[in-house]
Amino acid sequence: MSILEDVLAHVDANIEQSLDRMATLVRFQSISTDPAYKDECRKAADYLSDELNSIGITTTVRDTTGHPMVVGHDSDEAAKPGPHVLFYGHYDVQPVDPIDLWDADPFDPKIEERNGTKVMVGRGTSDDKGQLLTFVEACRAYKAVAGSLPIAVSILFEGEEESGSPSLLPFLNENKDELSKDLALVCDTGMFNADTPAITTMLRGLLGEEIVITAANRDLHSGMYGGPAANPIKILSKILADLHDETGRVTIPGFYDGVEELSPAIKAQWDALPFDAEGFLGDIGLSVPAGEDGYSTYEMINARPTCEFNGITGGYSGDGFKTVIASKASAKLSCRLVGGQDPHALRKALRAFVRERVPADCQVDFIEHGAAPAHSLSPDFPPLQKGTQALKEEWNKDAILMGMGGSIPIVGEFKDILGMDSMLIGFALDDDNIHSPNEKYNITSYHKGIRSWVRVLSALAES
Amino acid sequence: MSILEDVLAHVDANIEQSLDRMATLVRFQSISTDPAYKDECRKAADYLSDELNSIGITTTVRDTTGHPMVVGHDSDEAAKPGPHVLFYGHYDVQPVDPIDLWDADPFDPKIEERNGTKVMVGRGTSDDKGQLLTFVEACRAYKAVAGSLPIAVSILFEGEEESGSPSLLPFLNENKDELSKDLALVCDTGMFNADTPAITTMLRGLLGEEIVITAANRDLHSGMYGGPAANPIKILSKILADLHDETGRVTIPGFYDGVEELSPAIKAQWDALPFDAEGFLGDIGLSVPAGEDGYSTYEMINARPTCEFNGITGGYSGDGFKTVIASKASAKLSCRLVGGQDPHALRKALRAFVRERVPADCQVDFIEHGAAPAHSLSPDFPPLQKGTQALKEEWNKDAILMGMGGSIPIVGEFKDILGMDSMLIGFALDDDNIHSPNEKYNITSYHKGIRSWVRVLSALAES
Repeated sequence: MSILEDVLAHVDANIEQSLDRMATLVRFQSISTDPAYKDECRKAADYLSDELNSIGITTTVRDTTGHPMVVGHDSDEAAKPGPHVLFYGHYDVQPVDPIDLWDADPFDPKIEERNGTKVMVGRGTSDDKGQLLTFVEACRAYKAVAGSLPIAVSILFEGEEESGSPSLLPFLNENKDELSKDLALVCDTGMFNADTPAITTMLRGLLGEEIVITAANRDLHSGMYGGPAANPIKILSKILADLHDETGRVTIPGFYDGVEELSPAIKAQWDALPFDAEGFLGDIGLSVPAGEDGYSTYEMINARPTCEFNGITGGYSGDGFKTVIASKASAKLSCRLVGGQDPHALRKALRAFVRERVPADCQVDFIEHGAAPAHSLSPDFPPLQKGTQALKEEWNKDAILMGMGGSIPIVGEFKDILGMDSMLIGFALDDDNIHSPNEKYNITSYHKGIRSWVRVLSALAES
Repeated sequence: MSILEDVLAHVDANIEQSLDRMATLVRFQSISTDPAYKDECRKAADYLSDELNSIGITTTVRDTTGHPMVVGHDSDEAAKPGPHVLFYGHYDVQPVDPIDLWDADPFDPKIEERNGTKVMVGRGTSDDKGQLLTFVEACRAYKAVAGSLPIAVSILFEGEEESGSPSLLPFLNENKDELSKDLALVCDTGMFNADTPAITTMLRGLLGEEIVITAANRDLHSGMYGGPAANPIKILSKILADLHDETGRVTIPGFYDGVEELSPAIKAQWDALPFDAEGFLGDIGLSVPAGEDGYSTYEMINARPTCEFNGITGGYSGDGFKTVIASKASAKLSCRLVGGQDPHALRKALRAFVRERVPADCQVDFIEHGAAPAHSLSPDFPPLQKGTQALKEEWNKDAILMGMGGSIPIVGEFKDILGMDSMLIGFALDDDNIHSPNEKYNITSYHKGIRSWVRVLSALAES
């Protein structure tokens, strides 16, 4: 047998102990957003540090102004082939409310069968304790069988991912030299479905903006002033309506600069996916895809930019009626960005677009709400090709190169501060109930997840 | 001297006593909206009833579920020429908050000089106690000099005008026979300016409607669903934007049915008015007339229909930002109506207009918020011609036939329930601070107001 096969066999032979360690980690009530669980967060960090040290990854628990970071470096000093990777995960979890919707204690994990599938139920099993352990357990098996890891490995676990990561940015900046490696590996995403592995290679960026229109210097009586007095709700509605044309495209000049169509290979892969667009919309009570004409629902969510209105307010919105012409009206909007769209250029373009549509005697103010470019890995990126191949060998299916509608801020921060790309490989499933009662992680996700990382580590070592 | 001249001389000779009676009425703290002042409302009603009885108008105070009505009929049984008129006013007043902005006790009226003009300051001096007394004092003078009024007169004073007149409609219905006369005279409006009398002959009607758009069955994450999921704020903005074309005209099919251009005579009168459109907008911090192209600001407010948005709400509008796609968004809108616009037909047309623009998988609900047609008196209406002439004789200036942007519900109710037109003659001025601190009524408004009613009563008696 090759070393790889030996390591995989070791994983299989020791899966019960791996599951025990997962249960141990889940038992820490490491709810980061609630100060009552501060000690539990610290204990989870200590536990992880001890475990990493026990397998020869020299690890310390590092204080921050919030919950601590766990930072480890493989103590094996030998020069290694392939990239030096920094593996990222988070040991904190979401709160458990509403607790009465849980079938059992969220912090007393049990393995049970659900719809014919073996799962471990408990808060954090999927997000992100089970997932981060897939990597740790892969390293443990490698070390046990081969004596050392095939590539250089460093580790970063944070404890504030579920509460906005306030300490992460300063920590990355303060420890730039220590943490800047060749490639980040992140295990906090999902598979395409229970049989089909995936690497998330496209994350949409985000541009958030608030528009405040002021017309008259006070609220007016619509009988006394209705007609000649500018109405800010009318001005705002017109601006918002103008932001899309009748085909659903955004009309801000330059909006699509940097947006690329899918490569034929990815398009073919996505077109072949058993994605149930009807069910996706049906679940939320809709049936007609909105958005840009000519793009599939799956493509719209994962690879197309949007301009969505997240909130609007102006005038009287209580019960009954008030014949008022408001002084102010405002809207919050956010653009999801893809490809090379530049959020800062787009903010400027959006503001110019709005200003052009505000009457000379009215005022517009803007409030900035964040800007992050999209993240994408080229299909030609060598680690991605190796990762894809490794996953295919484990799952006997092509790994899907997925997009993700939302943002994962860490990916942008690793790129901006540490100069690293991130490869996002995860084994979560849509029905894992993350952030909800009865969160679970499939035993198959965990077991084959560990095996997948063994194969990825091995593949990355190949030249 | 003619009788008319004798009556006018009597008014002049007794103006001090008339002012004393005005001060007495103002002293009652008849704030109708605040239950703490219930007894004060009753006392004001009793006082008026006593005063009317003392001049031979047989009057009773009639209970309602709210504040009482004062109803009087001239006891002079002789057959009279001209129309039998019902004079309407209200003895209740607005609250006085913020009390610290008053220079003196609002219910201890004083005569003082303001900007070189003698005024009485106090809550209700202008709205509507001083105004309604102009008519009572005119009757008093006529009775004192001539022994009887020249035409048949009935009186209706209500005590709930400032709190929505909840008892008025049932009272009119229950006393239809008693109150249905030939013509209503209403003294609750203003002059064009301090020198120029006016009769308000056009009141805009009102159609109130709330539109509620529901898209998905719950609020969505804009990253996960942005693009293919319908966004109700987007749908609503588009509908609102569609409601006006680029010339400011309302685009609802049939909206302008029944809207007539001004008669050349009124247009000429209005064009000649010293109305300061720039100052009107400047006061509220604006300078560019919005609304329909091709109409003056004055005409837009007084004689053109509008469709104004009074409130809008949807999604997240708190501090900061939330990347949500709301399930619901709603807007309140109101159309001011003129001429023969039919509010019920327009509501139907508006709803059809909206429904056409709601995607098949989204829902729209409507909430009705009132419907009242516009009111207008034809310039050929004989009492109007007589009233105009009487005012010209008193003020030595043509009375302006004014429009009024707001609604006076009583006018529609008199028409619908009692079958009477209303002639609105009043002597209030824009700077009277009605509903505000330091409300006042010019002594000239009061004195020449009384004289004006003497002349109107006399003119209406002429064949």
